[in-house]
Amino acid sequence: MNRRDLDFLLYELLDVDALSSRVRHEDHGRDTIAAMLDTAEAMAETDFAPNNRKADENEPRFENGRVTQIPETGESLRRFSEAGFMAALGDERWGGIQMPFTVNMAINAVFSAANISTMAYAFLTQSAANMLETFGSGEQKERFLPRMLSGEFFGTMCLTEPQAGSSLSDIRTTAAPQADGSYRITGNKIYISGGEQAITSNIVHLVLARIKDAPPGVKGISLFLVPKVLVNDDGSLGERNDVSLAGLIHKMGYRGTTSTMLNFGEREGAVGWLIGEPHKGLSYMFQMMNEARVIVGNGAAALACTGYLHSLAYARERVQGRPAAAKDPTAPPVPIIKHPDVRRMLVAQKAYAEGALALTLFAARLVDEWRTGETEEARSGAHQLLELLTPVAKSWPSQWGLEANSLAIQVHGGYGYTREYPVEQIYRDNRLNPIHEGTHGIQALDLLGRKVRMDDGAAFERLCALMVETADAARAHPGLVEFSDALADTVERARLTTAALRANMTETVLGNASVYLEMLGHVVVAWLWLKQAVVACDALAADPHEADRAFYAGKLAACRYFFRWELPKTGPQLDRLAAVDDTWFAMAEDHF
Amino acid sequence: MNRRDLDFLLYELLDVDALSSRVRHEDHGRDTIAAMLDTAEAMAETDFAPNNRKADENEPRFENGRVTQIPETGESLRRFSEAGFMAALGDERWGGIQMPFTVNMAINAVFSAANISTMAYAFLTQSAANMLETFGSGEQKERFLPRMLSGEFFGTMCLTEPQAGSSLSDIRTTAAPQADGSYRITGNKIYISGGEQAITSNIVHLVLARIKDAPPGVKGISLFLVPKVLVNDDGSLGERNDVSLAGLIHKMGYRGTTSTMLNFGEREGAVGWLIGEPHKGLSYMFQMMNEARVIVGNGAAALACTGYLHSLAYARERVQGRPAAAKDPTAPPVPIIKHPDVRRMLVAQKAYAEGALALTLFAARLVDEWRTGETEEARSGAHQLLELLTPVAKSWPSQWGLEANSLAIQVHGGYGYTREYPVEQIYRDNRLNPIHEGTHGIQALDLLGRKVRMDDGAAFERLCALMVETADAARAHPGLVEFSDALADTVERARLTTAALRANMTETVLGNASVYLEMLGHVVVAWLWLKQAVVACDALAADPHEADRAFYAGKLAACRYFFRWELPKTGPQLDRLAAVDDTWFAMAEDHF
Repeated sequence: MNRRDLDFLLYELLDVDALSSRVRHEDHGRDTIAAMLDTAEAMAETDFAPNNRKADENEPRFENGRVTQIPETGESLRRFSEAGFMAALGDERWGGIQMPFTVNMAINAVFSAANISTMAYAFLTQSAANMLETFGSGEQKERFLPRMLSGEFFGTMCLTEPQAGSSLSDIRTTAAPQADGSYRITGNKIYISGGEQAITSNIVHLVLARIKDAPPGVKGISLFLVPKVLVNDDGSLGERNDVSLAGLIHKMGYRGTTSTMLNFGEREGAVGWLIGEPHKGLSYMFQMMNEARVIVGNGAAALACTGYLHSLAYARERVQGRPAAAKDPTAPPVPIIKHPDVRRMLVAQKAYAEGALALTLFAARLVDEWRTGETEEARSGAHQLLELLTPVAKSWPSQWGLEANSLAIQVHGGYGYTREYPVEQIYRDNRLNPIHEGTHGIQALDLLGRKVRMDDGAAFERLCALMVETADAARAHPGLVEFSDALADTVERARLTTAALRANMTETVLGNASVYLEMLGHVVVAWLWLKQAVVACDALAADPHEADRAFYAGKLAACRYFFRWELPKTGPQLDRLAAVDDTWFAMAEDHF
Repeated sequence: MNRRDLDFLLYELLDVDALSSRVRHEDHGRDTIAAMLDTAEAMAETDFAPNNRKADENEPRFENGRVTQIPETGESLRRFSEAGFMAALGDERWGGIQMPFTVNMAINAVFSAANISTMAYAFLTQSAANMLETFGSGEQKERFLPRMLSGEFFGTMCLTEPQAGSSLSDIRTTAAPQADGSYRITGNKIYISGGEQAITSNIVHLVLARIKDAPPGVKGISLFLVPKVLVNDDGSLGERNDVSLAGLIHKMGYRGTTSTMLNFGEREGAVGWLIGEPHKGLSYMFQMMNEARVIVGNGAAALACTGYLHSLAYARERVQGRPAAAKDPTAPPVPIIKHPDVRRMLVAQKAYAEGALALTLFAARLVDEWRTGETEEARSGAHQLLELLTPVAKSWPSQWGLEANSLAIQVHGGYGYTREYPVEQIYRDNRLNPIHEGTHGIQALDLLGRKVRMDDGAAFERLCALMVETADAARAHPGLVEFSDALADTVERARLTTAALRANMTETVLGNASVYLEMLGHVVVAWLWLKQAVVACDALAADPHEADRAFYAGKLAACRYFFRWELPKTGPQLDRLAAVDDTWFAMAEDHF
């Protein structure tokens, strides 16, 4: 990760300084945040990164009902927990550090860039702990939260079932109430990341299931806490719960993270406790999924960033060929960064990677504002924007971060396709991100079918107003007028098109939701690039040091790339969206 | 592979019937071609496909200076050779079958779709044999050709060196002339596919090297035949030549094909024989590379096709979720092909896959026309078009075939990311295609820097005239008028832009060559879709059987998709090309 860029985003773009005076975060000024990031950088480089390839080449195995995996994964995570990172988000009462969500997202990016499949265990545990802190009972928190925040227990989220996939309303796992207030859980879950591992003594599964006689569909789903090993009242570990590993799933990448099939209740039923109220499990899960989705986007952005930096270093050092104009074959060859096509692939990566990182940190900043904003209006406004932008913050980095990684391979030529260089693994790892935590298509339906319509379009209008505000501010800089105009024009077109679609949200319109998601993603990232360019222009006017001059000029160049080469892609998309194109909607099944 | 589509392309679109009356191909009418394709389909399905995953999971190893690999690869190739496929292109004099190049390309697609890393050994051997047949001496042919066409010996092409990569002018391998007319070859080659294997008793390496005191650059490169094992005058195998395996390269995919580092002349120099004249090696190699590049594109198209068919089958069979309009959660779930977003991903794959296949078979048909056309004008015109379209036929399928495979994964959801389903391997295999046989960037420079300019733009103008001709013909069908207009407009814009760029081919213009390549690729494939649509309209007018009606209607739907959703992407590209955008060209190195 480029620390200069992280600091730019946190302080110059997103005003994380303002969070230091907020409730929960009083202790966290620039100094403590810098110390956390310094430690994260050092640990990522010397501890996480060196095991990244090893975890890929020695994926976890299922032997005699147990998982074996390389010990380095667990050892890195133990040091991660010891340094306090696992506890970053938690409340002090449970041993947490109460870092702003935005700062934790930056830390997440640092570790994910180094070794995303190790970091995944931590992110899942943090998310599960968050959910427990928000919705759990006092006793549940007391029993489990401190041990999750310390990294002694890890957490998982158990949603998907083999027959249901993305269709959560079809889950069949059942929960039978017991006389002692607990439940017996029975069912099969699939794709449970970290569902079994050889790292911690216990795993806290958060499981979606139906209480007997619950209403059908999503309104009959409840959330349960199901530990792998029961915990006695004195805190000692008791009996093994009735949760068993049915098998591991072998993936294209992200191999260090176990992906499991779990059977709940093969024997007498797994012991579980209801979290919150019955039948509200999906709403709890969704509140957490909003965070998890931004974190997935952030991981994709981090992989884009690291792929970019690897290919940039390679392009500076690899000597090959001559400029097209050089006719003398005896002239010395040049570093390939001199070749325009290599620069094309680098600036595109920079625009995707840093744009994606800005997007996910912006979304994280909305989480903080929603939780700690100084007025009710600030909090509810941030929440509204966050709801709207969550599918974008999940999908855009996943799509374009992967594209960035493909370009990173291409910069390396043949070497990039080999396992001797890191970029091929990064590309394989990143291919998961458009799939998990809700596929691209699911995010698209969420955006166009729900988020754009909610509150009669108020969130969308708020976003448009913010974008126009930035376009207006950017006009003060002569070099940005071209981009201000382009952004204002595109936003206006998107606004009109969206209003028309919202007024008549047919199945055909929803059938084009993925295109809508991709279009709006490009508009939002163009906006964030213009915001960055405004900051850069202001900073350049203050006559910074030479290294900073290059940094800010790089931001302007990437902004220019995005507006000249990327934003125009939305033109044809808006044409077809406005026309309510029915090409695939109308296609007969036997015509494929 | 979809046999109906292959037959459509061969007979209804490309008039392969006409080749049956041409010299060399008199024996090959529809019956013999159908028999070859039937055999290929059966062998691909029962022999090649079942070992595809196994070859991926058990990649060749380098042990004690030798290669070990799964025996199935060699066994499949032996049966392939016994069935006559290795000899398909060769002259009868050497045991060849003299199939039209187009037919062999269709066969290549069938086998590549099933197991591309096994098929690669065959394609390399066929290409090496072709080169030898065209440029080798009578003695060289007699000694090696029959044994290559029978599959007893395999062939390789040894171009790349570690320090030179795409920059062939920098190769350093030397050739020292000997008193007996042979040469001693010394140097290191890298990425030599099939450079060592555990299949054949001998390997015929075709090696680029410099004769001592040759002029610098590409004009001092000669081509040599260097067998792994020397062949005695009586045909028996003699001494091991001084060619040794320095190591295997471990790849992201395409793992069944060994990718080797070879050392020539570690001891006394490898014995080699000059092919053709000194210093003309690269021109020979280029003549062959034109074919090899189309074959690479064809392989990418085949992988796109098979990924499409796998995901189509999955979409028909996998039951999950309900239409967006269905509010009743107890309604039965539906096959996912009912979901519009799944259909979007299917029709896009169809358009990319079948479009790419049409493109590479069209290019192959140009090879046949160039070689066997009935007039000098037909032959030279075909050659001119082939030269122009070769970079497009290599790059477009590689780029969009990969995109199709990504969509195939996405249709499968989480399952698509696992190694339990075939699509993740197909995607990894296909990622090689934008790299080998000249990267995307190299193809782009070839297209814009050489091909578009050659003969003062005559080839490009010929292509434009053909495209306009199709647009005119399509206007006879009311349903195609919209697409005729779009094609004619885009061709005219591309023509004007190209003329302006050609008139002032600066380094900045060449810096945008990759965009030009992508733009022209989309225009050419739109044209081929319109050509297919015209054939489909005519066929539908003749009231075909029901299955054929669906087939032709599918062609029209894919054409509609391409014109509505893909061709418009060229608009922003043409804008920036016409503006001679210098975004990356002008970017300072320290701004990345």
